Amino acid sequence: MGTLNPLLPMALTMGDPAGIGPEIIFKAFAVQPDLMSHCCVIGNLGVMRKQLADLSSHLPAGMSCVEVLQVGQVKDMKPGQIAVLNVTPDADFATGVVSVAAGRMAADAVTWAAKAALRGEVQAVVTAPLHKKALTLAGVHHPGHTEMLQALAAEHLGLKVADLPVRMMLSSQDLRVVLVSIHVPLRQAIDAVTAAHVLQTLQITHQSWPLLFGRHPRIWVAGLNPHAGEEGLFGTEEIEEISPAVTAARAEGIQVEGPFPPDTVFMQARQATGTSAPDVVIAMYHDQGLIPVKYSGLETGVNQTLGLPFVRTSPDHGTAFDIAGLGKADPSSLLAAIRAALPTPG
Amino acid sequence: MGTLNPLLPMALTMGDPAGIGPEIIFKAFAVQPDLMSHCCVIGNLGVMRKQLADLSSHLPAGMSCVEVLQVGQVKDMKPGQIAVLNVTPDADFATGVVSVAAGRMAADAVTWAAKAALRGEVQAVVTAPLHKKALTLAGVHHPGHTEMLQALAAEHLGLKVADLPVRMMLSSQDLRVVLVSIHVPLRQAIDAVTAAHVLQTLQITHQSWPLLFGRHPRIWVAGLNPHAGEEGLFGTEEIEEISPAVTAARAEGIQVEGPFPPDTVFMQARQATGTSAPDVVIAMYHDQGLIPVKYSGLETGVNQTLGLPFVRTSPDHGTAFDIAGLGKADPSSLLAAIRAALPTPG
Repeated sequence: MGTLNPLLPMALTMGDPAGIGPEIIFKAFAVQPDLMSHCCVIGNLGVMRKQLADLSSHLPAGMSCVEVLQVGQVKDMKPGQIAVLNVTPDADFATGVVSVAAGRMAADAVTWAAKAALRGEVQAVVTAPLHKKALTLAGVHHPGHTEMLQALAAEHLGLKVADLPVRMMLSSQDLRVVLVSIHVPLRQAIDAVTAAHVLQTLQITHQSWPLLFGRHPRIWVAGLNPHAGEEGLFGTEEIEEISPAVTAARAEGIQVEGPFPPDTVFMQARQATGTSAPDVVIAMYHDQGLIPVKYSGLETGVNQTLGLPFVRTSPDHGTAFDIAGLGKADPSSLLAAIRAALPTPG
Repeated sequence: MGTLNPLLPMALTMGDPAGIGPEIIFKAFAVQPDLMSHCCVIGNLGVMRKQLADLSSHLPAGMSCVEVLQVGQVKDMKPGQIAVLNVTPDADFATGVVSVAAGRMAADAVTWAAKAALRGEVQAVVTAPLHKKALTLAGVHHPGHTEMLQALAAEHLGLKVADLPVRMMLSSQDLRVVLVSIHVPLRQAIDAVTAAHVLQTLQITHQSWPLLFGRHPRIWVAGLNPHAGEEGLFGTEEIEEISPAVTAARAEGIQVEGPFPPDTVFMQARQATGTSAPDVVIAMYHDQGLIPVKYSGLETGVNQTLGLPFVRTSPDHGTAFDIAGLGKADPSSLLAAIRAALPTPG
């Protein structure tokens, strides 16, 4: 992991342009211009300009998309100007509909942004939402950003994908969780709760923290079964897999406690204060972590990929095709993602 | 299910007296005497009197425990008087420690209260927390109240336990969930997600509602897998088990929608308003439902058993042996349980 250079701009991908990506980018520039002045939008210039015109009644006057040829040109933008780096050919598509053309534009933007980050040209990549089916139509056979970025980074580093393990971190205003597994059936997620896999999750979390927060984290670990198995009565994964991983992680100097009963660990993490409060809870599967992160509302949810050689964050919502083009989209989650991508956010 | 008689008293079991049961009962009487005037405490008179004296510095002056021989005598109590029906022999035990004596007292109180409810002498049973290990030491081999009450009711009705299926409902201020399964390993909980078992959960929920709320419920159903399986990509239980159960329930006139993605269904149920808001969400396993119910805090959590021939509620916390006798216990959850046991609570 390279040293952060706070003078480097951030790459902000346009997302699937048939969804709300461009709209939340415009609104983010409108409401927090200082924060957004670090961001160079990666995508299609014509699409960005057309959507800015189409959405003008929902935006302040005087905003414009300015073509740049290098991300460093963000520093030359004047108030109201949005720097756009054009990395994908023009094509027609309909708003609010899955299409190969929009999927291709979204994929091109992500690929360009990841490569720029891997070359050290940007300090972070923030990704607006893409649509998995559009991605597939465009010939990109990854379920989402996380796997796509992992593959691009592994290729850049000359590694096999399996040798660059990553984990998804989700954050709300009052809770951060890192997931042991993500998009697999719950039965397979249980199979993935092995000592090796839990230890790897702890190591990735521990090692990623300094890049994001300037120090190592205090980690809590959830159990898998009701009441964390209640001493083996309701399942043995806590005894056979999770506890050995916690012990091994401690031996490596990782500050970690658990496994704790899943039904209360997230509530207790939210309520804990001071030095007893954890920075993050390791969840054993997708919904165990995402139910509490999303429960308070999605407005400030941030999705972050740990384990990549660069910082990557995204809003915790999808393309919202149902409201695309209507001017109703909320930029809060995107703004939270951009703040989370800054070194040591508040 | 019998017609409710709002003039009947409620049976309030003492709980494991080595824990905080008596203390939260005293505090509940102190802070909401009108609500508590319906309640007859079922337990041990000597224990209640001793603990009232021991905790007097944490309670208003002038409270006393008055022995009654029938629950109907609650109506004769004067301000500050707590009606106690003595149903279990005196015995010594230490505060804050698992013991056979305290476990036996707790079990006797539950047995007496359940039988009184089955005879139609009380309108509801509200149970203070007991401790599973103490219960086991006392020779009662049920994991908790739910299974104990199910067995007593089945015996009373001349049914096999399997022919009196019950479900646990947990409620917070902003969410109610009913669980398809409870205290089993997560792998077994997945096995329990069958069309028959989900349909039975829907039927029990639907049939129990009028007794509690005077009408039938609007029900949402969570999926099992991430994104509710995403059309079979991350698991097939939604297609093969849950959706058929929902279809069959609708054919029986049950108002039910789903399965919905687990990570957002609870948040959406919390936020929904008006006629689109569900009364309750069916969770496919213990932690799926309990994580969101507990996330906002445990103060007003209520545990309720659906499917019994009487109303039964309890606070959503344990015996708290660590703070027993210290005067620190919070009666909020017990008070919420008593309010929930009243017909059509607000």
